[in-house]
Amino acid sequence: MSYLVLQERPKDEITDTTFKKVTEPLPETLKKGQVLVKVSYVSVDPAMRGYLADVRSYLPPIAIGAPMRAAGLGEVIKSENPDFPVGEIVRGFYGFADHFISQDGSDLEKLPFKDVEIPQYLALFGITGLTAYTGLMNLIDPKPGQTIVVSGAAGAVGSIVCQIAKLKGARVVGIAGTPEKVKWLLNDLKIDAALNYKSPDYEKEFVEATKDLIDGYFDNVGGKTLDLALKQAKVHAKFAQCGGISGYNGKVEPLYNYMNIVKFRIKLEGFIVIDFKSDFPKAIADLSTWLREGKIISRLDIIDGNVDELPRALAGLFKGANTGKRIVKL
Amino acid sequence: MSYLVLQERPKDEITDTTFKKVTEPLPETLKKGQVLVKVSYVSVDPAMRGYLADVRSYLPPIAIGAPMRAAGLGEVIKSENPDFPVGEIVRGFYGFADHFISQDGSDLEKLPFKDVEIPQYLALFGITGLTAYTGLMNLIDPKPGQTIVVSGAAGAVGSIVCQIAKLKGARVVGIAGTPEKVKWLLNDLKIDAALNYKSPDYEKEFVEATKDLIDGYFDNVGGKTLDLALKQAKVHAKFAQCGGISGYNGKVEPLYNYMNIVKFRIKLEGFIVIDFKSDFPKAIADLSTWLREGKIISRLDIIDGNVDELPRALAGLFKGANTGKRIVKL
Repeated sequence: MSYLVLQERPKDEITDTTFKKVTEPLPETLKKGQVLVKVSYVSVDPAMRGYLADVRSYLPPIAIGAPMRAAGLGEVIKSENPDFPVGEIVRGFYGFADHFISQDGSDLEKLPFKDVEIPQYLALFGITGLTAYTGLMNLIDPKPGQTIVVSGAAGAVGSIVCQIAKLKGARVVGIAGTPEKVKWLLNDLKIDAALNYKSPDYEKEFVEATKDLIDGYFDNVGGKTLDLALKQAKVHAKFAQCGGISGYNGKVEPLYNYMNIVKFRIKLEGFIVIDFKSDFPKAIADLSTWLREGKIISRLDIIDGNVDELPRALAGLFKGANTGKRIVKL
Repeated sequence: MSYLVLQERPKDEITDTTFKKVTEPLPETLKKGQVLVKVSYVSVDPAMRGYLADVRSYLPPIAIGAPMRAAGLGEVIKSENPDFPVGEIVRGFYGFADHFISQDGSDLEKLPFKDVEIPQYLALFGITGLTAYTGLMNLIDPKPGQTIVVSGAAGAVGSIVCQIAKLKGARVVGIAGTPEKVKWLLNDLKIDAALNYKSPDYEKEFVEATKDLIDGYFDNVGGKTLDLALKQAKVHAKFAQCGGISGYNGKVEPLYNYMNIVKFRIKLEGFIVIDFKSDFPKAIADLSTWLREGKIISRLDIIDGNVDELPRALAGLFKGANTGKRIVKL
């Protein structure tokens, strides 16, 4: 079995020397309670960049030499645990690894329903879908006729936020980084307006698309787009601060328009998905209903490869390489 | 009677040509319902800088040629209105003016009790004291043992915030701009730590004074101190955004540490005092009790002068000239 450990903290971009591969033989026999999982899908997420930095955050940083932290899906291939028979598909935090040994099954989770594509358990029914649902509903709670702006709108979280806000009757403006993503947002997700933040006239286009001002802003990127959203905020606008991918590689774009927080009594709240754990059953019920009814698209950006592919797949997130939820299929 | 109108919008600092004086004769007779007030005290407040800029805000900007907006206290010297007899002290928005004619008394307010210094109705019982009380209690709600940081701590709002947070049992760290203000915060207001933001070691001192991290931050200044507070915020810290005097003269200090809003799930809320109007009776009851019991100091920074003095008194606020609530006595 192979897995990646952190070799050196990246200064800015993730490189070939950020991780190191460790290879060990698979155990021949398991102890009572143990479960051997062959990992089939590994999630790569922007938040992982934060785990690699030695700074205070909501989770402790990965230590140098320690295995990377990552959610995954896998199949039980050997088991000394009656709760997890061979063949069962399970979700867990397996890391950047092709196999995982659970000591007692307590870190494994069975899938509640199987009539969906399995990788959706790392996407729509995983951290990203739940982040989109719980953050939007708790911190913004979009209403018919409101204008909701979503940054990173073609990403795994943003694309779900856009669609839930539409389902709730809001006018949705999505921000992305390529003409193809803009087209996808308009044609497939059918949101009301979509902008390319790399356009030379971006600021003007943003102001035009939000000329009736912003009721809610769901932020995945920080930086200039957050600053523009502050500029265009309506009185008592609500900002759900979910991420800041524009600054994850070390070059933070500063904010200037924060005095509007006072002037327009804006409420900005940061959150992470585990803050809303009690909402997960309702979130999964709603999301799976919408998926089955064809009311929501959860696009998967699946890369085939082995564990060696994972660092590049992760690095690509910070260059806007993905549309939808990026997953590596081992 | 003399009053000041806006002559030109200041680019950065308020200058001698920002306002223009208009002089008119006092009316010889009043119509039925009218009240003539001789203004005795005029409030000058940092928020006034915002009224002078032609940008979207919570109140419309003052038009060029229009009278300045300002709260004041005055004495009725002529009256055709039985509700406001000659000699009554009344509060209102008289502007930068030495007299004011009310058409029907609806814009005049009698003082509920008279056993306090009259100018306190522009300070502790005025916008600044009510801002301090309602913002702190609604958005932070300090608890015993918590660390609360207050910027602009020697100012009209900040000094009251510091003392209420102490009365509620919190550890209070105040930020000010001169050694004298720091001394006053420590010796007179008896807060736990006070820092001079102009100190060459300010950042180090801030981190040291907040090494157990910040539960609540009451912000009057924005800029670098807000950025440091974001850096030192505890998980689920609450930030009450009241003002941003560091940027009022046009040079905004940008924010870099805003990703901590996500990491530590910080809640930042902007407010203005009128958002909490329903709390005013309780606020005034508590504040007046504390004042009578000697538990709160409301320092007045009274400047003697006529209406010509008002622009300079206002400009001084942005240079940190005041300790406590600045008022011009006409």
